[in-house]
Amino acid sequence: MKVSNQNIEIDGIDKEILRALMEDARTPILEIARGVGISGAAIHQRLRKLEKSGLISGSKFTINPKILGYTTMAFIGIYLDKAMSNPEAVKQLKKIPEVIECHYTTGNWSIFIKILCRDNEHLMQLLNKDIQSIVGVSRTETFISLQQQIDRQIPI
Amino acid sequence: MKVSNQNIEIDGIDKEILRALMEDARTPILEIARGVGISGAAIHQRLRKLEKSGLISGSKFTINPKILGYTTMAFIGIYLDKAMSNPEAVKQLKKIPEVIECHYTTGNWSIFIKILCRDNEHLMQLLNKDIQSIVGVSRTETFISLQQQIDRQIPI
Amino acid sequence: MKVSNQNIEIDGIDKEILRALMEDARTPILEIARGVGISGAAIHQRLRKLEKSGLISGSKFTINPKILGYTTMAFIGIYLDKAMSNPEAVKQLKKIPEVIECHYTTGNWSIFIKILCRDNEHLMQLLNKDIQSIVGVSRTETFISLQQQIDRQIPI
Amino acid sequence: MKVSNQNIEIDGIDKEILRALMEDARTPILEIARGVGISGAAIHQRLRKLEKSGLISGSKFTINPKILGYTTMAFIGIYLDKAMSNPEAVKQLKKIPEVIECHYTTGNWSIFIKILCRDNEHLMQLLNKDIQSIVGVSRTETFISLQQQIDRQIPI
Amino acid sequence: MKVSNQNIEIDGIDKEILRALMEDARTPILEIARGVGISGAAIHQRLRKLEKSGLISGSKFTINPKILGYTTMAFIGIYLDKAMSNPEAVKQLKKIPEVIECHYTTGNWSIFIKILCRDNEHLMQLLNKDIQSIVGVSRTETFISLQQQIDRQIPI
Amino acid sequence: MKVSNQNIEIDGIDKEILRALMEDARTPILEIARGVGISGAAIHQRLRKLEKSGLISGSKFTINPKILGYTTMAFIGIYLDKAMSNPEAVKQLKKIPEVIECHYTTGNWSIFIKILCRDNEHLMQLLNKDIQSIVGVSRTETFISLQQQIDRQIPI
Amino acid sequence: MKVSNQNIEIDGIDKEILRALMEDARTPILEIARGVGISGAAIHQRLRKLEKSGLISGSKFTINPKILGYTTMAFIGIYLDKAMSNPEAVKQLKKIPEVIECHYTTGNWSIFIKILCRDNEHLMQLLNKDIQSIVGVSRTETFISLQQQIDRQIPI
Amino acid sequence: MKVSNQNIEIDGIDKEILRALMEDARTPILEIARGVGISGAAIHQRLRKLEKSGLISGSKFTINPKILGYTTMAFIGIYLDKAMSNPEAVKQLKKIPEVIECHYTTGNWSIFIKILCRDNEHLMQLLNKDIQSIVGVSRTETFISLQQQIDRQIPI
Repeated sequence: MKVSNQNIEIDGIDKEILRALMEDARTPILEIARGVGISGAAIHQRLRKLEKSGLISGSKFTINPKILGYTTMAFIGIYLDKAMSNPEAVKQLKKIPEVIECHYTTGNWSIFIKILCRDNEHLMQLLNKDIQSIVGVSRTETFISLQQQIDRQIPI
Repeated sequence: MKVSNQNIEIDGIDKEILRALMEDARTPILEIARGVGISGAAIHQRLRKLEKSGLISGSKFTINPKILGYTTMAFIGIYLDKAMSNPEAVKQLKKIPEVIECHYTTGNWSIFIKILCRDNEHLMQLLNKDIQSIVGVSRTETFISLQQQIDRQIPI
Repeated sequence: MKVSNQNIEIDGIDKEILRALMEDARTPILEIARGVGISGAAIHQRLRKLEKSGLISGSKFTINPKILGYTTMAFIGIYLDKAMSNPEAVKQLKKIPEVIECHYTTGNWSIFIKILCRDNEHLMQLLNKDIQSIVGVSRTETFISLQQQIDRQIPI
Repeated sequence: MKVSNQNIEIDGIDKEILRALMEDARTPILEIARGVGISGAAIHQRLRKLEKSGLISGSKFTINPKILGYTTMAFIGIYLDKAMSNPEAVKQLKKIPEVIECHYTTGNWSIFIKILCRDNEHLMQLLNKDIQSIVGVSRTETFISLQQQIDRQIPI
Repeated sequence: MKVSNQNIEIDGIDKEILRALMEDARTPILEIARGVGISGAAIHQRLRKLEKSGLISGSKFTINPKILGYTTMAFIGIYLDKAMSNPEAVKQLKKIPEVIECHYTTGNWSIFIKILCRDNEHLMQLLNKDIQSIVGVSRTETFISLQQQIDRQIPI
Repeated sequence: MKVSNQNIEIDGIDKEILRALMEDARTPILEIARGVGISGAAIHQRLRKLEKSGLISGSKFTINPKILGYTTMAFIGIYLDKAMSNPEAVKQLKKIPEVIECHYTTGNWSIFIKILCRDNEHLMQLLNKDIQSIVGVSRTETFISLQQQIDRQIPI
Repeated sequence: MKVSNQNIEIDGIDKEILRALMEDARTPILEIARGVGISGAAIHQRLRKLEKSGLISGSKFTINPKILGYTTMAFIGIYLDKAMSNPEAVKQLKKIPEVIECHYTTGNWSIFIKILCRDNEHLMQLLNKDIQSIVGVSRTETFISLQQQIDRQIPI
Repeated sequence: MKVSNQNIEIDGIDKEILRALMEDARTPILEIARGVGISGAAIHQRLRKLEKSGLISGSKFTINPKILGYTTMAFIGIYLDKAMSNPEAVKQLKKIPEVIECHYTTGNWSIFIKILCRDNEHLMQLLNKDIQSIVGVSRTETFISLQQQIDRQIPI
């Protein structure tokens, strides 16, 4: 993929380092150093530069929610009425830990969220008790992800 | 949040370790050990158990796509006609690196994807050349995320 | 509820008999007889009359599908294209045992079905392999019953 | 059909007994006993086990509503506004005897019901007087079942 | 067309008489009498019978609205909110002479009307001032008949 | 109602004559003459003028379709695919006598028709056998008029 | 293109003059005069006649909004509730300089506008702060023009 | 309005010149010069700079299409099937002079056009003969602008 790096210069070595860490954030620096053929100190220096540029936004352990019993992912389009502005509704949604994404989108919904539930009954409770009780939420449209077939970052 | 851990037993120490690593995957084990009050070896042992249980699905550097020039996130609902089965269409979508999520959903779309583009013009090119040219794609509905207001994992 | 019995005459005793058997089809006739105050033979005679009139369409054990692992009920609106007439499509749907109701409806769908699945993944397989592969099915819209709150017969 | 019986063990003899009673709940036990080749007492014992497991949820006479003059079946999608929570609206719907099913569904409706009416005029009265007068019902979408082509239980 | 005349008996002569008068209500009775081959008195007698049966609902001059300057026909689906019941809204619509049909329909609209306007600007005024100002009208969906291609009665 | 008579001049006497005949096309001319206060010959002259102007498009007996057993009125929005042009589809629709109106409309349907059926089952047959079998008809949306509350001409 | 000039007579020379000025409003009159073969005074006379007829509604410099940083064009369908009449809402929209077109349309929206924004974030601010805060605006549907492929006047 | 002039520097005098010419492209330069207080030559120099920057995209006479008999403006959403790519469909639309705008938009339409017609009948002909006959156009949704209430450029 051709990438137009607007603000930063990243060379082939940067990319090799990033690809290794995007796959496994705990890859030892020395292992990467051996693969790339430069010193570990040089890799640390390059990582500091990439972090400073904002390109690396963090590193995190990813948890498999199914193991925690969260087997149902759903998307919910939310219609807001005038009683509540978008920022206020988002503040309420943030208090619901099952809401893992929230977007302000074009199209016919005011807010579009991704939600993780234990099962269909849990989804119903979240809709009924937590989401539809937010002041300003007038109507919701839910669709369930029966299977997630792609889940990845934009490649470097 | 109450969590019903179906298949695994995780105690409070597991949770403290996980929370530290979910925030920053490169947190030194010894630092966590000091915070929690057990030996680094014990933490390594617990991590191995959690990895074996499948709860930890990986660790990764997260890249800020805006720094790479990817400023526009969009959702696209795809209607398939009979010329191509869902799995075949997904195989084609996997070849488009800008497609970062793909779901098989209830509701009126056959496939629902999340896509990252450099700008609106790039989005148009992806729609016109890459997505709508897939055999079996009969129609698409695009909506742009004007702002992502929540992006997080399910809490432990 | 006022009932306009177009073709048959049913009196209060008929109603008492029917209500008992609508609740539990295996209620002993003699028990009903005692309750109503007429002979068991008279009840048998009335039941024959009601069966002949067509009012009693049958009696059946009802099975709780959840015990069999069928936890997900869904409704699917089906759009047909011209390749297959409605009766032919229905013939194909009859071969799918999970399809427990099928209606020809006004509105924007050609066919509207109720389906019982083990879980969301099973629903996806039925959609992908069994329903959308029927010749003439051009598109489907699925919505899941998160909870059935009323399920009863029309009262007598 | 392959059935994954999660909680109970049912063998071939159980299935034969159930199939006979699912077709006609009043089939004499001795007749089933002769067909299956075990004693009536054994059948009674098995039925008690199946009832205890919850698999048999009941037995009932089914009434042909057309004989009672109920010739029109309709589905109604109901949009609720914030004035009434879902459980309260369902409580009101339960008071309308013509409402024979009620579901909480994903998709764009809050509540989805099945209704039996004498004719189109009766349907209009139910909509106008009984359903749309429930506090919290903001809008309804009705579609009529012109013909029910499949109506059955999940097979054993 | 095969006609199942539920309540009345009409023979071939009745049909000939009706067809003549359905085409031109002022056809002289004696002219019809000559064509059919019975006396004018007999025709008057049959007409009285048909009027009494309710089959003939009236006779009227039809006016070409285009000559009066009414060149634009439109259909308007009206969504009502709870502030006004259907009968009250219809009462208000009756006061607008341009509303020439009004139906209570299944589907997503509460009320569906046919309207005759002088031109698109007149249509806008009717929508803006007369229809949308009715208490209880929450939203309207208009579509214009660009050409009426069939306009006839059910044949006898 | 203010009327902008574009092409013809109609005075108060013309209007009185027209109103009488719009209500009952068989009102004797002499009766009208007496009411208006001019001679029958003058009325005949005026009617000839109005007919020549095109304002009077005809006079007809109106038949009550319910007496003939036509109790169900429905509207059907028809989507055409490219296999058949609008005029050809209309030609086919004209052959179905139950189609009493047909419009080419703005909005999302290609063709919009009004249809008179004996009952819901008849409607299903018309949809299934007569309308959806027309080459080029890809999909239909039906809604039933549960009650017609206004049916009149534009007033003079 | 055949043009039915209802109210004015324009000949071939008028058309040549208009086409030159529609392309470039500052074309010197003498240059046009040379091309057409009549005097500059005659052209001035014709222009006065065309202006008087209303055919020429003005002449203007057109500004390329992209150079000013306005790279995103969007269309917004606006649903109004009863709190504000259409003319009042339009008055509020006029105060938002980014709204460059506003239409009262048939179909399901009350108001339909074209808007020019600097980017997607600016669009979000306009929606959130300026448009959705207008009293009476209950809901909006936005779609972005990813590319404008035709932009021209009706030809003479 | 605050303007972020990305690529060019325009000062207050530039703005005054532009505003005069945006209102009337034929305003004599000397008149502007007097108003602004600099020489005509300086204005010519500034205009050359603004044209070179691309900010001024042209100047044109605007024609009032109503005077030419074009009284009906409509928007048409076009659904394309796979037989024709977007660029090919646009090429065909360019041949229809009544199509004055064409956009590639997000949302559910493939193409969105603005069209100017003489009247509703002309609109029907354009839809039927010119637009729906384009290979690849599967369906259209038309809505008519009953009144254009705002029509202006982005202000400087």
